[in-house]
Amino acid sequence: MWVICADLEGVFIPEIWVNVALKTGIEELKLTTRDIKDYDELMRMRLRILDEHKLKLQDIQEVIGTLDPLPGALDFVREMKRIARFTIVSDTFVEFAKPLMAKLEDPFLLCHNLKTDATGRITDYCLRQPDPKRKTVEAFKSLNYNVVAFGDSYNDVTMLEAADKGILFCPPDNVVADYPQYPVVRDINTLREKLREIVL
Amino acid sequence: MWVICADLEGVFIPEIWVNVALKTGIEELKLTTRDIKDYDELMRMRLRILDEHKLKLQDIQEVIGTLDPLPGALDFVREMKRIARFTIVSDTFVEFAKPLMAKLEDPFLLCHNLKTDATGRITDYCLRQPDPKRKTVEAFKSLNYNVVAFGDSYNDVTMLEAADKGILFCPPDNVVADYPQYPVVRDINTLREKLREIVL
Repeated sequence: MWVICADLEGVFIPEIWVNVALKTGIEELKLTTRDIKDYDELMRMRLRILDEHKLKLQDIQEVIGTLDPLPGALDFVREMKRIARFTIVSDTFVEFAKPLMAKLEDPFLLCHNLKTDATGRITDYCLRQPDPKRKTVEAFKSLNYNVVAFGDSYNDVTMLEAADKGILFCPPDNVVADYPQYPVVRDINTLREKLREIVL
Repeated sequence: MWVICADLEGVFIPEIWVNVALKTGIEELKLTTRDIKDYDELMRMRLRILDEHKLKLQDIQEVIGTLDPLPGALDFVREMKRIARFTIVSDTFVEFAKPLMAKLEDPFLLCHNLKTDATGRITDYCLRQPDPKRKTVEAFKSLNYNVVAFGDSYNDVTMLEAADKGILFCPPDNVVADYPQYPVVRDINTLREKLREIVL
C-alpha cells in the first residue's frame, strides 16, 4: 500500500513567486528555494519586499488567480488519486494555493499558512513545523504505508530521503549534481509510468 | 489548520456488507461493527461465509458497483476538500471502496486491503495496522494539525478520542448510550455547519 507524496510548484502549477515577480516587475521576487536554500531567509526577504511595495494578500491572490495548472496536471492528479493515496506536500501557503487547487479538484494538500492583519497586509508566515516534508513522509510510514516521493528542488530532498523511493522531477542542474543518488525524470508521462510501476 | 477525519460507510456510502447480504440473501453478512465490536472476529466470520457460498472478490465488487453514494455525499466531500484537509479513515478495503470512491471523485482514503488468490478467492484481509483510526489522528497531530473526527460506530471511538473534537454522526442508540461525551449530529447539513464552525 503506497502513499505518493508530490511537490506542487514546478510540478503541477507554475512557480507562484516567480509569476508574482513577472507580473509585478519586482526582480527579487524571482528567487526561489532553487537559489536560496534557507527557506526562512527567503520568506523574510519576500515579506519585506511585499511591504516595501505595499502589496497585500489580495494583490498576490489576484495574480495567482490568473495562473493555470501546468499541462497534463489535472489528468495526472486524477490518475494518481485512483491508483494510490495521493498527497501534495508543499512549502506554499493555503491562501496562495487555493485558486489553483480548485482547478485541480482539490487534491489532499499539506502545506503552510499566512497571517494577515485587518487590512490584508501579510504580517507573518506560519510554517506548519520544522522539516515538514520529511515529517509528512514519516507520518505516513507510521501508518504502515510505503511512500514514494518526488520533487524538483532542495526543499524536497528530506522528503526524498525519508521515502522508500525518491524521484527528482525536472530538477535544475545544481540539484542533480548535489543529489546524484536519485533517478531524474523530465516529463510527466515518464513520471506517470514510473509511479504506476511502483504502486501497482 | 484542521484535518477532518471522516468515517466512510453509513456517512458517505451505504454499509457495504449489509448490501452484499441483501443482494446475496445471506443473513449473517448483515452483521457489522455495530453488532460485533471485535473487528477481527467479524472479518474472519465474513471470509468463512464467503468461502462457504463460493463468493469471490469480483462477485462482491459487482454488488458494490451497483451502489451509489448517499444523497448529498458528493457535494459534502467537495466542500470539505475546499475548506480543510479532508481524509476518509475507514475499516473497509481499497478493493471494495474503489467503485464508490470514483463516484466521490476519489477523496483521500486511508483503509485496509484484501489478499486474493489467482482465482479471485479472498484468502485473507490485511489490516493496515492495529487501531488504525487512532493512529491516523495521531499521525496528523504529529504534523501539527488540529483534528476533528466523525463517525457512527464503535470502530470510530478511538479516532474520536484521539481527535481535538469528535462528533457522532447518525449513531445507533447503543453507541450514544456508551459514549455520551460526544455531540450527536443526525443530518448532513447540520454536520456541514458544525464542521464549518470548527475549521473556518
